Amino acid sequence: MPSSPIRKLAPYATAAEDRGVKIYHLNIGQPDIPTPKKAIDALRKITRTTLEYSPSQGYLSVRQAFSRYYSRYGIDVDPEEIIITAGGSFALLFSFMSCLDPGDEIIVPEPSYANYFSFAKSVGAVVRPVTSTIEDGFALPPVEEFKKLVTPRTKAILICNPNNPTGGLYSPEEMERLRDIVLKHDLFLLSDEVYREFIYDGAPYRSALSLKGVEDNVIVIDSVSKRYSECGIRIGMMVTRNPVLRAVMMKFCQARLSPPLLGQIVAENSVDGTEEYQKEVYEEYVSRRNFLVEGLNKIPGVFTNLPRGAFYTIARLPVDDTEDFCKWCLTDFRYTGVFPGGETVMMAPASGFYATPGLGRNEVRIAYVLNKEDLARALDVLERALGQYLARK
Amino acid sequence: MPSSPIRKLAPYATAAEDRGVKIYHLNIGQPDIPTPKKAIDALRKITRTTLEYSPSQGYLSVRQAFSRYYSRYGIDVDPEEIIITAGGSFALLFSFMSCLDPGDEIIVPEPSYANYFSFAKSVGAVVRPVTSTIEDGFALPPVEEFKKLVTPRTKAILICNPNNPTGGLYSPEEMERLRDIVLKHDLFLLSDEVYREFIYDGAPYRSALSLKGVEDNVIVIDSVSKRYSECGIRIGMMVTRNPVLRAVMMKFCQARLSPPLLGQIVAENSVDGTEEYQKEVYEEYVSRRNFLVEGLNKIPGVFTNLPRGAFYTIARLPVDDTEDFCKWCLTDFRYTGVFPGGETVMMAPASGFYATPGLGRNEVRIAYVLNKEDLARALDVLERALGQYLARK
Repeated sequence: MPSSPIRKLAPYATAAEDRGVKIYHLNIGQPDIPTPKKAIDALRKITRTTLEYSPSQGYLSVRQAFSRYYSRYGIDVDPEEIIITAGGSFALLFSFMSCLDPGDEIIVPEPSYANYFSFAKSVGAVVRPVTSTIEDGFALPPVEEFKKLVTPRTKAILICNPNNPTGGLYSPEEMERLRDIVLKHDLFLLSDEVYREFIYDGAPYRSALSLKGVEDNVIVIDSVSKRYSECGIRIGMMVTRNPVLRAVMMKFCQARLSPPLLGQIVAENSVDGTEEYQKEVYEEYVSRRNFLVEGLNKIPGVFTNLPRGAFYTIARLPVDDTEDFCKWCLTDFRYTGVFPGGETVMMAPASGFYATPGLGRNEVRIAYVLNKEDLARALDVLERALGQYLARK
Repeated sequence: MPSSPIRKLAPYATAAEDRGVKIYHLNIGQPDIPTPKKAIDALRKITRTTLEYSPSQGYLSVRQAFSRYYSRYGIDVDPEEIIITAGGSFALLFSFMSCLDPGDEIIVPEPSYANYFSFAKSVGAVVRPVTSTIEDGFALPPVEEFKKLVTPRTKAILICNPNNPTGGLYSPEEMERLRDIVLKHDLFLLSDEVYREFIYDGAPYRSALSLKGVEDNVIVIDSVSKRYSECGIRIGMMVTRNPVLRAVMMKFCQARLSPPLLGQIVAENSVDGTEEYQKEVYEEYVSRRNFLVEGLNKIPGVFTNLPRGAFYTIARLPVDDTEDFCKWCLTDFRYTGVFPGGETVMMAPASGFYATPGLGRNEVRIAYVLNKEDLARALDVLERALGQYLARK
């Protein structure tokens, strides 16, 4: 597995932080939002004396809570159709292990979540990318582009909706067109919907679980990590109505014995009675998004779309090679303001999100997981860094 | 992946319990021992407000705690050499993914932990078993038996020491002989040592981490699950001094983002200041072991060795097919004593622990994770069940 451009930056960031530099982390999806207090309180009140294995599929009460959650989105999911995993990550890995044999092909719109490539590689599957572009607002490419890539080895299409890293959202019509391809070629449709809560401006949304006629083809990857800002508890899930597929998934789940017990306690206590919390978090993200996008587009030469979902955006910068620029921000650039060690920004070079070599060279992914005060400062720092970097050339 | 004989029994157990039958679970390694109170108290006192991602390798403070733990066993392990995983299960899976390509062969003494076969299959590796027998006290077979199995595709030897399911313990001399094979053929030695605390009668023990000259070949799989009776927190680890291998393992770990945060808090607070707890738990298991083995060997036709480690034993029963007998115990047999729904026992048919078809047909694995009162009752129930089963024929 090759090192991604994002991971390559990590040692430079560590070195800078070791020298006392303040880094604004726009590169990762770790929100600064608190976890619902109610959920952490459930831990504080724990009465168990033995922290024992939970069932391999996850506790029924937790799956029932998730079933209630889905019903609020108008999605009818039976607790039996849910399998709890150690984060969305293992929902992805186990889904890949269950659906894909070495040499099988999976069609993925790019740019996409970089770990899809890692997991596909680890099961020996081949990613066939369909390219979406910043100019088209990262809309799903036309159905014809997908059809062109279908071969006898194609087993699945994988989407992320709302999208990490683009902030894009597929329209109900786009979802219906995907449904038609999936049905025609009898493919699996893996739909990563972990950002379901973060859909902005009243845009219409269609979960893959609501598509008709492809019930046995659809696997939804889900997670409480972003929804309740509890990334560390490692609770995700695979949801599928296909009982044969669930039986295969359960064999992997039984081999790993059980999902995290404590995370399940937190997750179960996050689902109900947190509507007010979710509303506040949502409004906070809308406000950060508007602030960030307006600020980015004011920087000379920078362009980004208004994301319609999730909490990331891809921005085009006036540089040839964002891998070099992002590294330079960590190794050479310092804004000397409030912090004695200086300040800088860390962003994710977008090349890591494309399977096609050479794409995304002038793009970065920016996560708006910082509060607005820090975002304002980060924008200021970025503008100065770009100015100095371009003047240096 | 085929269903193991153990998993096949699960629905019969559920059906029996649904009918109000009291089942003595001798089939699983879920101890009834409490988790250290100190460790659960750390959860009760949690002051974090955001349950965020932890580092992919695991928190440094947790790895430092484990380093201290190893030093108490005279094993010198640097925190850098430890990678935290979601239970020993993922330490195994990621080790397999890092060391084995499809078609590679791995030599495993049998009977062995059944999930080794599942994980090997999931990465496309081929298990080549070396058979140990109840008559020989499940001693490691002679080195010649391992050598016979080495082919150009052999990549690793996997042992479990102390052993699940046999309760066997490899002598320092046996470990040295393994070392010689590993060195001669440049193989990986995966050593599952999750039962390190449970070595009885002062038997000498040699961790694979203490073998000289094979530092780059050894991977130790470890876990706090059994040590502190906290199976549900899902904290295990891979330990290797091989930096190249660690870099490969870390790519998988980065793709799954992070190990469970809350489990790390519990595990870190279990390592120090729990010596008295560990002593009590140890003595409890010694006492249970002696009680169980004496009781088993008193039942006509039953034989088991005195386990030298872990908390399992393989017992030979006077039946032709323990899969059938174990199922019959759940579906047909009831001991009508104290419980209105009747009582029975659940055991693991040993055939599931052998890779060689047909072996272990008259053996079961029995875990001594119940208190002595329940063990006494279970022994009584087992004796009556055997009597009725044999009379029925």
